[in-house]
Amino acid sequence: MENMNTNHITESVIERLANTPDPRLKEIMLSLVQHLHQFAREVKLTEVEWLKGIEFLTRTGHITNAQRQEFILLSDVLGLSMLTVVMTNEKPAACTQATVLGPFHVDNAPHYALGDDVANGAQGQPCQVQGSIKGVQGEAVAHARIKVWQSDEKGLYDVQYADRKQHQARGKLTADAQGRFHFKSILAMPYPIPHDGPVGQLLEATARHPWRPAHLHFKIDAPGYETLITHVFRKNDPYLATDAVFGVRESLVTDWLEQADGSYQLDFDFVLNPV
Amino acid sequence: MENMNTNHITESVIERLANTPDPRLKEIMLSLVQHLHQFAREVKLTEVEWLKGIEFLTRTGHITNAQRQEFILLSDVLGLSMLTVVMTNEKPAACTQATVLGPFHVDNAPHYALGDDVANGAQGQPCQVQGSIKGVQGEAVAHARIKVWQSDEKGLYDVQYADRKQHQARGKLTADAQGRFHFKSILAMPYPIPHDGPVGQLLEATARHPWRPAHLHFKIDAPGYETLITHVFRKNDPYLATDAVFGVRESLVTDWLEQADGSYQLDFDFVLNPV
Repeated sequence: MENMNTNHITESVIERLANTPDPRLKEIMLSLVQHLHQFAREVKLTEVEWLKGIEFLTRTGHITNAQRQEFILLSDVLGLSMLTVVMTNEKPAACTQATVLGPFHVDNAPHYALGDDVANGAQGQPCQVQGSIKGVQGEAVAHARIKVWQSDEKGLYDVQYADRKQHQARGKLTADAQGRFHFKSILAMPYPIPHDGPVGQLLEATARHPWRPAHLHFKIDAPGYETLITHVFRKNDPYLATDAVFGVRESLVTDWLEQADGSYQLDFDFVLNPV
Repeated sequence: MENMNTNHITESVIERLANTPDPRLKEIMLSLVQHLHQFAREVKLTEVEWLKGIEFLTRTGHITNAQRQEFILLSDVLGLSMLTVVMTNEKPAACTQATVLGPFHVDNAPHYALGDDVANGAQGQPCQVQGSIKGVQGEAVAHARIKVWQSDEKGLYDVQYADRKQHQARGKLTADAQGRFHFKSILAMPYPIPHDGPVGQLLEATARHPWRPAHLHFKIDAPGYETLITHVFRKNDPYLATDAVFGVRESLVTDWLEQADGSYQLDFDFVLNPV
């Protein structure tokens, strides 16, 4: 016989999970249920508030499709995505830190040779990008595979233009035998995350803005090393302290130096962790 | 400047919520974020597991429509619905306890006179239901409005039959001047909650069955009293100890007495809480 009250109900759900065959699923479910119930008890959640939560999740599910992932956006603005990235990618202090992948990564970016202009017609101030890829012992990571992607002067990625026929400000490159790379692009700009859905309503209700500071995405792969997914941020960006998705790490912020001709230069060296 | 690590990120999200204008929303969001992060840290949630969670919520959103609410079902099987019901409906010990509304309540049930057969053609063993409605001081609650609904001998509610043209085993009645009621119906049977979606997969992965013990739903309204939403359960039901949605309370279980002719009789007295 069961007799539910607020003290007993959590124990009862925990008992019911006792026969979960997968030990990791069991561990996750036990922790999830306990924290979910602790939250509800702590705020003394009412039935009316509970229903608002159900309706919020329903709207979040219904706006999600192949092009838009509102649950990831929700996880992002609650700091859960970044927390998971940080925990999953703990590395020695000498290594370049990871940050969120973000929703604008695509698999089939075009290939470029070192020195090429990956902007490929995207509008913005010209920016020269260069650096090196090394291992923790200082060894060059020869022929590392590099993917880069970024926003244009309007703060938009190529995939956000419905009429764009080719990839812009996005590409794959291969470092040279000394692990060095260089390419031309444009200056990345700050941009708001999509905020015309439930997550935008949550940001508004909590008096938060939807902006991310300007950044250039890197994904770096090399045999024998852990894949690095990160951004390089731009010093003095107005949104560094309040990134809507909590992705900023101090070690990833650097000066993008303005040149006499109004173009920019970004130098950044990456350090990979051996597998 | 922000510099995210697992210790700092929660503080950072909390700071970002500091300007939430509605104090209750602020309280709820602060507690939610802290417990969500504590959960992720406690299990050291990986990016792969996080993505499985995102995909689970997405499937839950996509199967939800006007006829099916999979997020409520998820809340039910995690004990959150019942916890919220119990917290929202704390009453003096003398009062009848509340339990979950469930997904099969409808607004426009047919009206019946006392003594009528609410089964209205639904199949099952005949069952006579009778009792009284009183207040905490023992006073009769005259002309209380009663809604009842229940499953048939197959464990199905009328709304689960696609071809059913009229409501069955469901109705509205009004108690007499002494707060007494009686009506004819059928014996309620145990039934499984819908388990052909994500929530069913979760139950299967955690080695849980989807069954609810047999019960008759009551919703009782009367001026000057709190609305009571509850069930009456049947003693010796095989699922009393393992209700899939954790809705059983000992005070709501009673004998449904089998009569010499094979029919049943259920007697239950309700005590309402004054507003």
